[in-house]
Amino acid sequence: MNIPIAFWLVPIASVVALGMAYSFFRSMMKAEEGTPRMIEIAGHVRRGAMAYLKQQYKVVLIVFIILAIIFSVMAYGFGVQNPWVPFAFLTGGFFSGLAGFFGMKTATYASARTANAARKSLDGGLKIAFRSGAVMGLTVVGLGLLDIAVWFIILNYFDPDGLISITTTMLTFGMGASTQALFARVGGGIYTKAADVGADIVGKVEADIPEDDPRNPATIADNVGDNVGDVAGMGADLYESYCGSILSTAALGAVAFAATGEMQLKAVIAPMLIAAVGVFLSIFGIYLVRTKEGATMRDLLHSLSLGTNVSAVLIAAATFGILYLLQIDNWLGLSFSVITGLAAGVIIGQATEYYTSHSYKPTQKISEAGLTGSATVIIKGIGTGMMSTCIPVVTIGVAIMLSYLCANGFVMDMNASALSQGLYGIGIAAVGMLSTLGITLATDAYGPIADNAGGNAEMSELGEEVRHRTDALDALGNTTAATGKGFAIGSAALTALALLASYIEEVKIAMHRSGDIIVNLAGEEIDAINATIPDFMNYFQVNLMNPRVLVGAFIGAMAAFLFCGLTMEAVGRAAQKMVEEVRRQFREIKGILEGTGTPDYGSCVEISTRAAQHEMIVPSLLAIAIPIVVGCVLGIAGVLGLLVGGLSSGFTLAVFMANAGGAWDNAKKMVEEGNFGGKGSFAHKATIVGDTVGDPFKDTSGPSLNILIKLMSMVSIVMAGLTVIFS
Amino acid sequence: MNIPIAFWLVPIASVVALGMAYSFFRSMMKAEEGTPRMIEIAGHVRRGAMAYLKQQYKVVLIVFIILAIIFSVMAYGFGVQNPWVPFAFLTGGFFSGLAGFFGMKTATYASARTANAARKSLDGGLKIAFRSGAVMGLTVVGLGLLDIAVWFIILNYFDPDGLISITTTMLTFGMGASTQALFARVGGGIYTKAADVGADIVGKVEADIPEDDPRNPATIADNVGDNVGDVAGMGADLYESYCGSILSTAALGAVAFAATGEMQLKAVIAPMLIAAVGVFLSIFGIYLVRTKEGATMRDLLHSLSLGTNVSAVLIAAATFGILYLLQIDNWLGLSFSVITGLAAGVIIGQATEYYTSHSYKPTQKISEAGLTGSATVIIKGIGTGMMSTCIPVVTIGVAIMLSYLCANGFVMDMNASALSQGLYGIGIAAVGMLSTLGITLATDAYGPIADNAGGNAEMSELGEEVRHRTDALDALGNTTAATGKGFAIGSAALTALALLASYIEEVKIAMHRSGDIIVNLAGEEIDAINATIPDFMNYFQVNLMNPRVLVGAFIGAMAAFLFCGLTMEAVGRAAQKMVEEVRRQFREIKGILEGTGTPDYGSCVEISTRAAQHEMIVPSLLAIAIPIVVGCVLGIAGVLGLLVGGLSSGFTLAVFMANAGGAWDNAKKMVEEGNFGGKGSFAHKATIVGDTVGDPFKDTSGPSLNILIKLMSMVSIVMAGLTVIFS
Repeated sequence: MNIPIAFWLVPIASVVALGMAYSFFRSMMKAEEGTPRMIEIAGHVRRGAMAYLKQQYKVVLIVFIILAIIFSVMAYGFGVQNPWVPFAFLTGGFFSGLAGFFGMKTATYASARTANAARKSLDGGLKIAFRSGAVMGLTVVGLGLLDIAVWFIILNYFDPDGLISITTTMLTFGMGASTQALFARVGGGIYTKAADVGADIVGKVEADIPEDDPRNPATIADNVGDNVGDVAGMGADLYESYCGSILSTAALGAVAFAATGEMQLKAVIAPMLIAAVGVFLSIFGIYLVRTKEGATMRDLLHSLSLGTNVSAVLIAAATFGILYLLQIDNWLGLSFSVITGLAAGVIIGQATEYYTSHSYKPTQKISEAGLTGSATVIIKGIGTGMMSTCIPVVTIGVAIMLSYLCANGFVMDMNASALSQGLYGIGIAAVGMLSTLGITLATDAYGPIADNAGGNAEMSELGEEVRHRTDALDALGNTTAATGKGFAIGSAALTALALLASYIEEVKIAMHRSGDIIVNLAGEEIDAINATIPDFMNYFQVNLMNPRVLVGAFIGAMAAFLFCGLTMEAVGRAAQKMVEEVRRQFREIKGILEGTGTPDYGSCVEISTRAAQHEMIVPSLLAIAIPIVVGCVLGIAGVLGLLVGGLSSGFTLAVFMANAGGAWDNAKKMVEEGNFGGKGSFAHKATIVGDTVGDPFKDTSGPSLNILIKLMSMVSIVMAGLTVIFS
Repeated sequence: MNIPIAFWLVPIASVVALGMAYSFFRSMMKAEEGTPRMIEIAGHVRRGAMAYLKQQYKVVLIVFIILAIIFSVMAYGFGVQNPWVPFAFLTGGFFSGLAGFFGMKTATYASARTANAARKSLDGGLKIAFRSGAVMGLTVVGLGLLDIAVWFIILNYFDPDGLISITTTMLTFGMGASTQALFARVGGGIYTKAADVGADIVGKVEADIPEDDPRNPATIADNVGDNVGDVAGMGADLYESYCGSILSTAALGAVAFAATGEMQLKAVIAPMLIAAVGVFLSIFGIYLVRTKEGATMRDLLHSLSLGTNVSAVLIAAATFGILYLLQIDNWLGLSFSVITGLAAGVIIGQATEYYTSHSYKPTQKISEAGLTGSATVIIKGIGTGMMSTCIPVVTIGVAIMLSYLCANGFVMDMNASALSQGLYGIGIAAVGMLSTLGITLATDAYGPIADNAGGNAEMSELGEEVRHRTDALDALGNTTAATGKGFAIGSAALTALALLASYIEEVKIAMHRSGDIIVNLAGEEIDAINATIPDFMNYFQVNLMNPRVLVGAFIGAMAAFLFCGLTMEAVGRAAQKMVEEVRRQFREIKGILEGTGTPDYGSCVEISTRAAQHEMIVPSLLAIAIPIVVGCVLGIAGVLGLLVGGLSSGFTLAVFMANAGGAWDNAKKMVEEGNFGGKGSFAHKATIVGDTVGDPFKDTSGPSLNILIKLMSMVSIVMAGLTVIFS
């Protein structure tokens, strides 16, 4: 097939993104790192982080080798899979890991530099932290587009089965990325929260010393954790989301326009082009974030919002242009699908903000509950978190219906062609939401950098002033990150839905390869690949009264809870060990609390590393095993039930956990700002308990769930060949 | 239609159950109530409970009147509903309320008498408490069978549309029962937990006085709460489960055997007969629970287990007999469906026991986490609760598949007739699990009675010895209740599934009434009532890729979380008020803590009453409104998605909340038994926080969820006529 000229925008965008990332990295490295003490501490954190990452990659490597062998056997031994799959899978994992690695490397170099710049001014700190965040944002999108472009070119030349086959094969590299991301999020999440919870319980509650105090033995581990969990984990995670949305939409495009030669190709490259244009707009947005010397918080906030909002508005406008120039069928409707997605992202972001910021009632009430003790703080936090699921879910519901209907020209009847066109619209809405990831991720990733800069400042005893500035930077990030978070959450749901549809296509291809037929609704025997969705659903009895579907849905819902339970338990266990170790050091090493003895930071780093490495394996393997087992026992109907159950309840659970955790965090901050008794008061201790419980909610279990949902779909897709044999 | 002679066993069983309940009640009333102080306290609690119940019934009455008017308009105004529906609905609500009322009346009379008997011996206390629990158990099954029998006789004479119409109309009284049950569980749950949490936080944690101490102003409210929440709420709840399982199975039987005249009638009355025989076996089991003078704990435990286990084994055996004598098609397979259900109940019960009893690792670990503070207790408890969902869900999954396959003769193909016969098997499995409710509820309901007896003993200052005995009785109940709980949880899931199928039948009837046709899979236009499930699913495009189904599933999952969030928040708010009031009294009324001043119990009762009355309205109405709104906006496909999403995620959430709450409760008890520092230690305070958070988990939100799931199905069924208009 001739690759259209427009496609080449994709590799160009990729190279530009990576080039810009490199140049930002270089310019950050040129800044001074500060006092010898600052350099020393940053060195500790960097070495700890790298040491952990090496351990994590070792474990992941083994898993990847095993999976790649299985795929090779399936592809070359039994012929139930495309021969490119093992390679695509490996590159996805590799690039996802690389995105996390680069992000973390940058972050660990940037923290001392940010703290050093913050010694002079607020805007100096912002510039370094934000540009370093941008390195991560641009690396993720650059590597994502690179992988997509290269594979598209390769498969286009070598895969004889056409675009449907090409796009579903490319989805396999999504599975690689998801697997890597899950390990990164779970491992990093356990690492960081074990250290954080342990440090808080003994340091803040028992010994009454401030956060990041150098007297706390767990403080280096805590700072390492911010890097491996919040930075490396987030990088791998969003790499997966970004590629997943583009690839699943491409696959749906290939199906929706299968009957039309040239249009099909256009539908496949449209999501890639939107993403490519998004890269340029992100870079434009990043340059909009500039601050004057001596800027106030207000100026900085304005500047950051300007960057993200302008990028979002421009990508909305650009979508109309891209789809019009492609002359794709119903370009106007599809563009409105993208608008729907963007609007949903903004609403979800605002709702998240409302439920988790202490500028609003819900979080204020949690703070107030601190007056009656930690139990009421926990009860109110859980209540608030659960109620906060309402707006995001309803919004996603409306976005699904609208992006579906816009894309198929408001055909309410769910017939075969209306269905596949509508599903393509849902996918493209997700792509729109993630297309400006370059900048939204920058505002997200700079949070942990500012946080670490604060840690560095505290440990280097740079004084209140600097710490205030880094705290302000951190708070700033939390405020602007709302929209970015809304986009990330919303697009995860839409992408998961698109993956559901891709699963059906993959099953059809697997059947086509083994020469299986399907009896369509008219009663004719047809090649599986020509079956419409209603044909498929009827043939495999995928209806809501089929007990296999229902049992699958039950297991899907349970899987989300089980997974969270495992990760929560892991954090709990590791945190207990950490608490015991810190208490031991306070007891046994003389003069720690007086500042005359040196704590043994290394042993705490060791505890987190070992816990993370050990505890990440079971939940991650479970996520891979469940869809395979369900597929073998309950067949295709069971798998679809599993994915729908997992998606609906996993998404809701993820929103609940993220928001409850965020609200507890800010409720504590509100008390620390002097409300309800302020620091050291009864309410403060009560809200610290809330914050501590919220830590694994918002930074371990919650974010991992979004990957879990998609990984289960990805595994089902890649293993479709196996399910077909068993069905 | 001629009612077969066997049917008359149902009203006979009902009358026998009610007669036995009355005789147990009389004999309990003959026992002495104890010292004047004991009588006075019991009087306080009784009056408080009755006063609250009156308030609750007033609110519920208004809701019932409004709903009955709506149903009347639908039935008589628009003709989209059976004219008997408004009446059936009202009787269901009335009887469900009555079951709760009688149970509570008995419990409030029994508590002082139990305490008084426990002054002499352990077995004396057991006898009174258990027989009083049996009053509730037998009242629930007696009233349930009475309502079913009367309506079946009436409709059999007056409804011309045959058994399918009769059975689905009868389901309406299930909606009445569910509505009443939801208000009772939510209102009662908020009442009791507001008082309990408030009493614990100030009394146990802050003022260091024991549970139920008369110096605590919230103590009467706490004891009232046990009655209105745990007794009246549970009574209404299980009345609903009991009737729901029988009615939905009867409805499925009418459909599965629609083609066969006489067999259809047999299939309809079979679940009623199993329940009727279950009544006699329950009474037999109750009489097996007899103890010798001076019996040890071991003897008592043995005696209680004997009663419940013998009843369960006998009902399993009896089912073979009943179905054989009825000469129902595939009687052997259907009997094995019942065995499957019973086995599932036992497994779920054991798993619940494993995760919540401190004889096992999970709860022991939560206790141990107390050593590192309340945050780790909460984290571990949530982790354990989430992981504990695995076994119940997998068990239910296996039970669904097996009871389905046993009932249809292992036809793996989900064709129309295999499907409806299999679904009938799932329903009958649920009936088997609940058929011995007479005795299992007795072991459940006697727990709060023993608990209240303990409260009475403490407040009357009867001395350690008596309190120890009542605590032992309470602990005993917790141990034997495991199987009963397993049956209740498992049957709820299976019944909800049966209701899902009933919804489809109701839609078909509604369409039939308005003369709508359905195009079947062969492309022919047929009367809706003759459509098979696959026809129906294809015609309404109820497949898993239809965005309406998916959005429905999302909303269903969210509804469960929202509902829990609302009830958690309600408890949190009310508990805070309670804490403030108790603190105020400690501060302002002189000599309370020294025992010289009298606390103002009334103001605490008032706070709980007002909070419950006020806070139960929104969550309850939401449960009714959501399916109606979804039906109008997303049509039949959306409703089915909603119910599946709500069922799968609501069930899992309910298990999580119940088990986490139970585990926290027992983790605290373990510390109180002298482990990890014992009473008053750091670990004790930490585990009390866990227990306090667990209170609304296990006694408000968790149990309400089971009703919510079924109420949403019931509302959908009753409102099917409306959905048809909008679809």
